[in-house]
This record gives sequence, C-alpha cells and structure tokens, in this order.
Amino acid sequence: MKKLRWGIIGAADIARQNWRAIYDSGNSVVAGVAGRNVERTSQFITQCQADYAFEGMPRVFNNYHQLIDSPEIDAVYIPLPTGLRKEYVLRAAKAGKHILCEKPCGLCGDDVQEMIETCRDHNVQFMDGVMFMHNPRLRRIREVLNDSRNIGQIKRISSMFSFCASEEYMRTNIRLHSELEPAGCLGDLGWYNIRFSLWTMNWQLPHAVTGRIISQRANQSSPAPTPADFSGELLYNDVSAGFFCSFLTASQQWSIISGSDGSLSLTDFVHPANIHEPSFEVNQVQERVKCCDCTGAHTDSRTYGQDTLMIRNFVNQINSGRLNEEWPRIALLTQRVVDACYESAVQNNKLVLL
Amino acid sequence: MKKLRWGIIGAADIARQNWRAIYDSGNSVVAGVAGRNVERTSQFITQCQADYAFEGMPRVFNNYHQLIDSPEIDAVYIPLPTGLRKEYVLRAAKAGKHILCEKPCGLCGDDVQEMIETCRDHNVQFMDGVMFMHNPRLRRIREVLNDSRNIGQIKRISSMFSFCASEEYMRTNIRLHSELEPAGCLGDLGWYNIRFSLWTMNWQLPHAVTGRIISQRANQSSPAPTPADFSGELLYNDVSAGFFCSFLTASQQWSIISGSDGSLSLTDFVHPANIHEPSFEVNQVQERVKCCDCTGAHTDSRTYGQDTLMIRNFVNQINSGRLNEEWPRIALLTQRVVDACYESAVQNNKLVLL
Repeated sequence: MKKLRWGIIGAADIARQNWRAIYDSGNSVVAGVAGRNVERTSQFITQCQADYAFEGMPRVFNNYHQLIDSPEIDAVYIPLPTGLRKEYVLRAAKAGKHILCEKPCGLCGDDVQEMIETCRDHNVQFMDGVMFMHNPRLRRIREVLNDSRNIGQIKRISSMFSFCASEEYMRTNIRLHSELEPAGCLGDLGWYNIRFSLWTMNWQLPHAVTGRIISQRANQSSPAPTPADFSGELLYNDVSAGFFCSFLTASQQWSIISGSDGSLSLTDFVHPANIHEPSFEVNQVQERVKCCDCTGAHTDSRTYGQDTLMIRNFVNQINSGRLNEEWPRIALLTQRVVDACYESAVQNNKLVLL
Repeated sequence: MKKLRWGIIGAADIARQNWRAIYDSGNSVVAGVAGRNVERTSQFITQCQADYAFEGMPRVFNNYHQLIDSPEIDAVYIPLPTGLRKEYVLRAAKAGKHILCEKPCGLCGDDVQEMIETCRDHNVQFMDGVMFMHNPRLRRIREVLNDSRNIGQIKRISSMFSFCASEEYMRTNIRLHSELEPAGCLGDLGWYNIRFSLWTMNWQLPHAVTGRIISQRANQSSPAPTPADFSGELLYNDVSAGFFCSFLTASQQWSIISGSDGSLSLTDFVHPANIHEPSFEVNQVQERVKCCDCTGAHTDSRTYGQDTLMIRNFVNQINSGRLNEEWPRIALLTQRVVDACYESAVQNNKLVLL
C-alpha cells in the first residue's frame, strides 16, 4: 500500500515528536513542511531528517496555503497556535486533506463544530492530537473499570497535570499569549485532565462545571494575561471530577479514579513513563500492560509508543476508506467542556450548565 | 508523678481507641465514664477493661454533669455528637477540667471561640482530637518542606479523605444527622483535609474558600440531609488547596503537596499504615520516619502510635503547669475554615472571604 503523505503546517517543537512518530508509523511519510520563514523551515527539515530520514526529502513550502493545496500532500498535521488553527483547518478540509489537529482544537466549541462539519462535508478525517487515547493501557483500564469486583461505582475522578516553565519560557512561549492561546494552561494541559475524565465517564457530559484561574501570566508580547494555574470541577449526578493544571508547578500527571469499593490510579496518565509496559494501580496493586502481543522486549520500543500508534491509527482509518466519527465527536466534547470551565473562571467561578 | 485522671463523656466507639491510648500513655488513667444509659456505660467499661485493665476500676457515672463535677476527674475527653459539645465543654471548663474535644469542636467558630475563652479564663487546657498532629512524621515533613532543595515553593495541596459507609451506617449513624452533625462529612473528614492544608501553610489562613455539597444523605432520624460528598478549595496568593471528602467512596486518605520543583505525598496522612515507621514520598522517593530514637523494633509499637502520643502530649502539657496556647488556636482556625467552606456550599459554591 502506498504510504500516506503528511504535510506539517508550522515547524513547532511538538512537530519534531510527530515527525518521529510518522517515521515510526510504517504507513506514512512526511512529504512536506510549511513555515513562514523558509530558512527556519529548511533547517527544521534538515535537523529532523538527520535523525529520521525519509527516502524522499520532504519539501519546503514557503507558505501554509501552498502546502494545503499541493497534490503531493494527503493529510496535514497542524501544530500552529490555537488562534490560527481554524482558518487552516477549514482550508485544508476544503482542499480534501485529512487533518490531525493539536489541542485545544479551536478558540471555542462553535469554531470546532464548524471545522468538524466542514471536514465531514468534504469527506476528510478530523482528529485531535491526544496521544494517550491511543495507548493500549486505556483498553485494559476500561476492562478493570467495567469489572464490578474492582472499584465499584465511580464516585470521584481527581487529576493533575503540570510542569514548571522556566522564566525564559514564560517570557517568550506562545502558551502565555492571550490571543494565540487564550485558555493558557487550561487549553494546553487541562484539555488532558478533562479528556481523561470524559473518557472515564464513557463520554457522558457533566451537567455543570466550574473553573477558577488561580494564577495568570503574560509573555512579553501578550496583550493580556492568560491562565497559568487553573482548577476546575466537572459535576455529574453522584460523580464529580476535580482537576488542577499549571505552568508553575513541577511536572506531575496523576489521575485517580475513586469508587465505592476501591480506586485506580495512574502517575503518568499523559505520557507513560514506560512505553513498552505502561502501568496503573488498582487498589494499590500495580498492573502492567504490554504494548503488543509479542513475547519479548522490542529492540525499538518506539514502534509501539502512543504517539506512533496515534499516527498509525489515523492512517489506517484513512486507508480503510471510512471516516471515524468518534474522533471528531470527542474533540468537540472536550472543547465544549474546556470552554465551559473557562467561561466559569472568567465569571468568577460561576456554575456553568451544559 | 501522680497519673492524670480522665473522665470520658459518652461511650462512643472512638472512645475505645482513646481508652487504649490513655492506657498506653503511661502518664494517665481512665477514672470514669459517663453515659445516659448506666447499663451500656457499665458494659463499655467492662469491655474496655477486659482488654486494657487499669488498676482501679473506672467509675460509672449516671450522667455527664456528675462526672464533670467529680473531684476524682482531672480532664475530660468529649466524643459526644458535635451538636452537644458546647454545653459540656463550657461546664467542664468552669469545673476546672482540662478538655480533649473530638472534632468538629462545635457547630460554628463563634461557639468554639467561646469554649476556648472559657477554658482560658478557667486556666484549663483545650485540645481537639486530631491524632495525626502528634505523629513524628510531621516534624520530618516540615524539615523537608523548609529545605528549598526538595519541592521548592508550594503551589498546590491536594487531598482526599473518604470511606464508604455501609447501608446500616447510613441509616443509623449520627454523622448523617443534620442537627447533631450539620457539616456531615465536611466536619468528620474534611476537618482533616483542612487541618493538614493549614498545617502545610504554617497556619496561614486562606484569603477565601469555596465548598460544594456533591451528595447528601440523612439517617433515619435526621430532620434534613447532611453532606455525604464534599469538595472544597482554599485560596491563597499563588497557592491553592483542593480537597474532597466522602462517606460514599472507598477508603482513601492521600495528600499531595506540589511545589515549583517537586512534590511530597502521603497515602495515609490521617492514620499511618505503619505505626512504627510512618512514611511519605518526596519526589517519588520514600522516606521512613522512626517513631522514636530507639534502635530496635518495639515489642509493642502501640506505645508510639499517634493516638498514644496525643494523650501523652496532652498530659505532659498539663503536668508542666503551663497552658499550650497553640492547640486551641489551631482548633479555632480549622473550625473557621470548615465553617467558611460549609457557608460557601449552602450558598451554591459562593466565594467566601476570610
């Protein structure tokens, strides 16, 4: 089968990881990268290619539209700042390109809905770039949650996702820019907390949410501050999910699902510490999940990393000739809940109904 | 030195543990127990005495006032329902008895303030029954928090304290009675979450709090429902503490202090799993704290349990002839924050300033 040809729009740092994942996917290649600065884009390609060399040298595109319109590109990966995504997602969909979009997918749910509808109308796949969704660990956790002998009825989901940004990062990174990333750490990190909670609840929407901006920061070119510490709560009938995300707190990515009879916990729910055997604990007992059915250790376990699996799943779906309708749906659900938490926060922690 | 003579007011289940702790304290004895039902009180004494026999048989008092007024009693332990405590604390203080009071100490901060002032006026000691405060682990955790090489600046405190009550418990226990225990799980369990957060913050009061009753229940004789699932948040400048407590969720008692450079966590912050060597983790590395300076294992590690240490510390303080002013102060602080969280909850999660 012919390999799917990716175009990367914007030579962002996160794109380096996905370059590698595309390389490892086995079913696709990077065919081109578009950047605003030709020299920087060429440099990005040279650097990535030095580590993970595709047979055909990926092409440098001078601008995003050129890449989107190119017949040499089948799918685009969009790691642009959130504030710029909608324009290029719409244009790419209309050009018939499948779309893997970084999160938060858009500035608001209505934008994302329009993006998704445009994708559906033009028969292209939409997916948000949440790698942990593709980790085989989730399937096993679902089995454990479904088995009433483990934790019983779910009562509380607690989670935290944080990293402590350097002074330099705070000064310059776009995540601290109020127009490019208005939801700040809520969009960048809280997206994962919310996504994991929604997944745990089998995509049931909470009936209401609250959110609070605990600290805010602005980078040197930001017109206004953006959330840097955020806490929120998703409210269901008899279940609640509390989360905290932060650019100011040392790296943590724990999630604890507490039930009437026990609890299930992960200390690394976003990026598993052990790629080959991601683990979790059920009632204090560790369970390891094999990344595949093989019996021995892989010489290169990257092949089964969740980033590689994400790319491989995306490409397999396209190769199947059918669109996956679940992926856009859960991206939109997540965005709606992120929006509601943010709305609550800017209205002083007001209860926002969904 | 003559042993301090305790009177227990109300033969509650928790009193069995403190009977044992008084027995193990080495510096005090149970001299009497007062109950409303003489037969039940005698039975309580006989049962406790069978396991931990004081030389002199503790006396059965027919009513609380008789015990309080008895010249054979030096200090009282009050495990009565919260709604009944104020009357007996005031009376005991006026009778010159030192007071160890279960938590929540009263129905509101103003009541507790009156209780404490009356104790001060009558030169008697007041302390709330929070055993973990007497665990040597806390001193070591403080050293770790004070050492900037460990977790840096504190940013977030997360904690959960829960147990899953049986149907029978829900139907009959006073903790589900809206008049005797109006704060429900917030008073019974959240008290510990809040206390631990205040301790972590060196008793600094948050500038504001919020609280939410997520589920409520009433026992069969309760006029109204009382909180059974509660979430709250304490807000400081650039620090926040989120907690969850519940009668409906399987036993959990974790606390995580997250800082700019790392984190410190306890999975058993209320009742340490290992009495002899309570532990905690700093940046994923476990540290064990010896319960005392001895080199070998104790034949009876109960002697160093935090419940025994609480009694011993209380009695030592009284024997010193000086009052400890910190203990009543932190009981009142805790009550004020509990009150504020409760007020927020009944006002639909409104921000309550302190």
